[in-house]
Amino acid sequence: MSMVNSIDYLITNGFIITMNSHGTQIENGYIAINDGKIIELGENDKINPQYRPRKKIDAKGRFIIPGLINSHTHGADVLFRGLVEDLPLEKWLQKLWKVENQFVTGETVYWGSLLSYIEMVKGGITTATDMFFYVESMIRAAKILGFRLITGPVFLESRDHDEFKIKEELSKAKEFLDNNKNSSLLRLCLQPHSIYTVSPNFLRRIGELAKENDCLLAIHASETKNEVKYSIDHYNCSPIQHLDDLGLLSNKTILAHCVHLIDDDYKILAKRDSIVSHCPISNLKLGSGIANIQKMIEANISVTLGTDGPVCCNDLNPWFTLRLAAMLQKTLGENTAILPANEVLQLMTSEAAKSLSLSDKIGSLEVGKLADILIIDNSQAHALPMYDPYSSLIYSIGREDVYSVFINGQLIMDERRILVLDENLVKKEINNIEEKIKMSV
Amino acid sequence: MSMVNSIDYLITNGFIITMNSHGTQIENGYIAINDGKIIELGENDKINPQYRPRKKIDAKGRFIIPGLINSHTHGADVLFRGLVEDLPLEKWLQKLWKVENQFVTGETVYWGSLLSYIEMVKGGITTATDMFFYVESMIRAAKILGFRLITGPVFLESRDHDEFKIKEELSKAKEFLDNNKNSSLLRLCLQPHSIYTVSPNFLRRIGELAKENDCLLAIHASETKNEVKYSIDHYNCSPIQHLDDLGLLSNKTILAHCVHLIDDDYKILAKRDSIVSHCPISNLKLGSGIANIQKMIEANISVTLGTDGPVCCNDLNPWFTLRLAAMLQKTLGENTAILPANEVLQLMTSEAAKSLSLSDKIGSLEVGKLADILIIDNSQAHALPMYDPYSSLIYSIGREDVYSVFINGQLIMDERRILVLDENLVKKEINNIEEKIKMSV
Repeated sequence: MSMVNSIDYLITNGFIITMNSHGTQIENGYIAINDGKIIELGENDKINPQYRPRKKIDAKGRFIIPGLINSHTHGADVLFRGLVEDLPLEKWLQKLWKVENQFVTGETVYWGSLLSYIEMVKGGITTATDMFFYVESMIRAAKILGFRLITGPVFLESRDHDEFKIKEELSKAKEFLDNNKNSSLLRLCLQPHSIYTVSPNFLRRIGELAKENDCLLAIHASETKNEVKYSIDHYNCSPIQHLDDLGLLSNKTILAHCVHLIDDDYKILAKRDSIVSHCPISNLKLGSGIANIQKMIEANISVTLGTDGPVCCNDLNPWFTLRLAAMLQKTLGENTAILPANEVLQLMTSEAAKSLSLSDKIGSLEVGKLADILIIDNSQAHALPMYDPYSSLIYSIGREDVYSVFINGQLIMDERRILVLDENLVKKEINNIEEKIKMSV
Repeated sequence: MSMVNSIDYLITNGFIITMNSHGTQIENGYIAINDGKIIELGENDKINPQYRPRKKIDAKGRFIIPGLINSHTHGADVLFRGLVEDLPLEKWLQKLWKVENQFVTGETVYWGSLLSYIEMVKGGITTATDMFFYVESMIRAAKILGFRLITGPVFLESRDHDEFKIKEELSKAKEFLDNNKNSSLLRLCLQPHSIYTVSPNFLRRIGELAKENDCLLAIHASETKNEVKYSIDHYNCSPIQHLDDLGLLSNKTILAHCVHLIDDDYKILAKRDSIVSHCPISNLKLGSGIANIQKMIEANISVTLGTDGPVCCNDLNPWFTLRLAAMLQKTLGENTAILPANEVLQLMTSEAAKSLSLSDKIGSLEVGKLADILIIDNSQAHALPMYDPYSSLIYSIGREDVYSVFINGQLIMDERRILVLDENLVKKEINNIEEKIKMSV
């Protein structure tokens, strides 16, 4: 005897791109969501008639894909977006750091992070690795919105860092890890800034703490020629080799950028199964160069994609990131066949989840996985006609086409309206901070 | 005695970025439009109280900028957008040409062109140089929408082109030029495809016809390494040198791409005052390379920007083109200071108009110029905060933020809705063609 089956959401009539390992597409499909998870999906004409959804969404003429994973950003830097532009790198950093020092507080980071997470959700990003100060403010912002966050304390060493200060920071970090173990929307991550801002001794101990607590570790690595020169001058090896010597490289290590690798670096990264976060927008805009992710993929290195922070990128646009990643590799390899549309989409969905040890939870649309889902409009002039969904998604669709966003089974945005909080209130707070910053510069 | 002054449109309360030669910005300004032209603009509190506009538009919280100029595209190729992807260039061309041969007719070109012009208007492009077959269909589509077009017959030589056929095509082209002299929305242009598809003899005579009729001439040039090799093999010189030898280079010549230039080419282009159309999206996606437009600008060459056609680009997105143009030069020159935001915007507005001998008509917001105007929303999460309008426009704003578009003083789009025709009807026709193409491949 069949029974009436109350569920949270039923999405019908959509073109489902599952991003599962078989590349399954369902041209006219449904997804049933309950208690945060995908409980069923399939052909639309096989929907269980006993479903009684709390809300039903008709996705006719729309794509349904997994939420996108942004593996590197600095969300609250949104406060300073567009403030410092088109200057040589040193002047750019000087000006930026001056204003950051003045305006970065627990309060401003809360509002900045919240704006950045709203922007990311509106663009289709449902998970982000976020590196910034005042991590509690970031987590508070993510929780208000229901955004999936990979984060933890940042480590930056000043000249007066002695053993006492290092121990204090490590003990605070340990406390943070203990206090935040059980959040379903949070994946913990220790975040030393880079090899040129954190000493080998401190780096090694951060690495040990990460290992002891089985959490991720994120760091900028081999972003610029200057960083590589610094590493050779100080440690007589590449930044990657230096990190490996310190024991920091594992399959839980996220290395942002990796623009300037030497041949041995590829071997080390493959051997350690470490994760590269390729940030093509930031690398181009800051004149850092073009990372050879095709070579990384061929070397069996896990490659993911990041927007980087809004002072470099400047909007948090996953579609621009995806498209640029594919196009740059085609030019670097002088071959249009490199990194086809479906493969590049994997780098922000299934492959990203796998790399980040999250593939049991997110990254594809499969029964039992958490419901991180995008419904994407495919009817605008720029997206017609449609011969191949992957080509449409990578080369025609933009952030404005993301219509509805589920994270953890919660409908965060519907018809482009954030449902869980008042977006205008956030904008008002941002305007207030903006006015203060404008008066000071 | 002051008199009541009936005018067509009055835009108020906008942040006007004039793009005039002084870089004038008016933070709270108005623009009065009548009879196709800008008749006055200035500070909002100085609006002539006698104005009686037919329609008043409040642009509070919005930018007002000149319409964008796309110097190279193949609009009707939109019919095949996304059909052929991620293949090596030869296979890609074979597959594309096969389906083009089958489906390109006067009728399909009309609908394809119309969709592409709608997409361009919705993205903020008000003028485009369009190279495709069935030029009468293209002009018909542009007229229906009120789109500003630079176009004319394409020349592609097949193996059986004899003197009779060449004379016939030239005489048809002459007839076309004579018949289309007096359209205010049309700038005439002869369009030989390239040095490897049109013989020197035919090219020379097309050049002479263009000169006699004082019209523009557009051609692909130095797009790929293969093209340069072809030129050296056949003519013992670079494509640019070859075109100069044939007398084709003048300040009315638009050269699309120019990715692979030798040092002498820069000198020739500067001497002839010819116009480069830089198409960064297409060049990356087809793996052609990165044109050094910074070097061109330093050599006093006129640089403009193009999206290229939708089989290469794939959407017709001027914002992506602008941003990519700036970012690629920063990376090529390893210097973040290269091509600042305001300068790159000039390449699609004031400088583009100057290059195309249209600066008396369009390219900046000034009294007496034709009213090609964009009103751009600046209130979305991705565009906050706003410290500098140029940075916002190049690095945050997207096509979806273009709210209203005037061309030649006519309001073509308002609040993102095309006013002058039924967009859904066009989409329906495109869907019909799409279905036929899908059945044949």
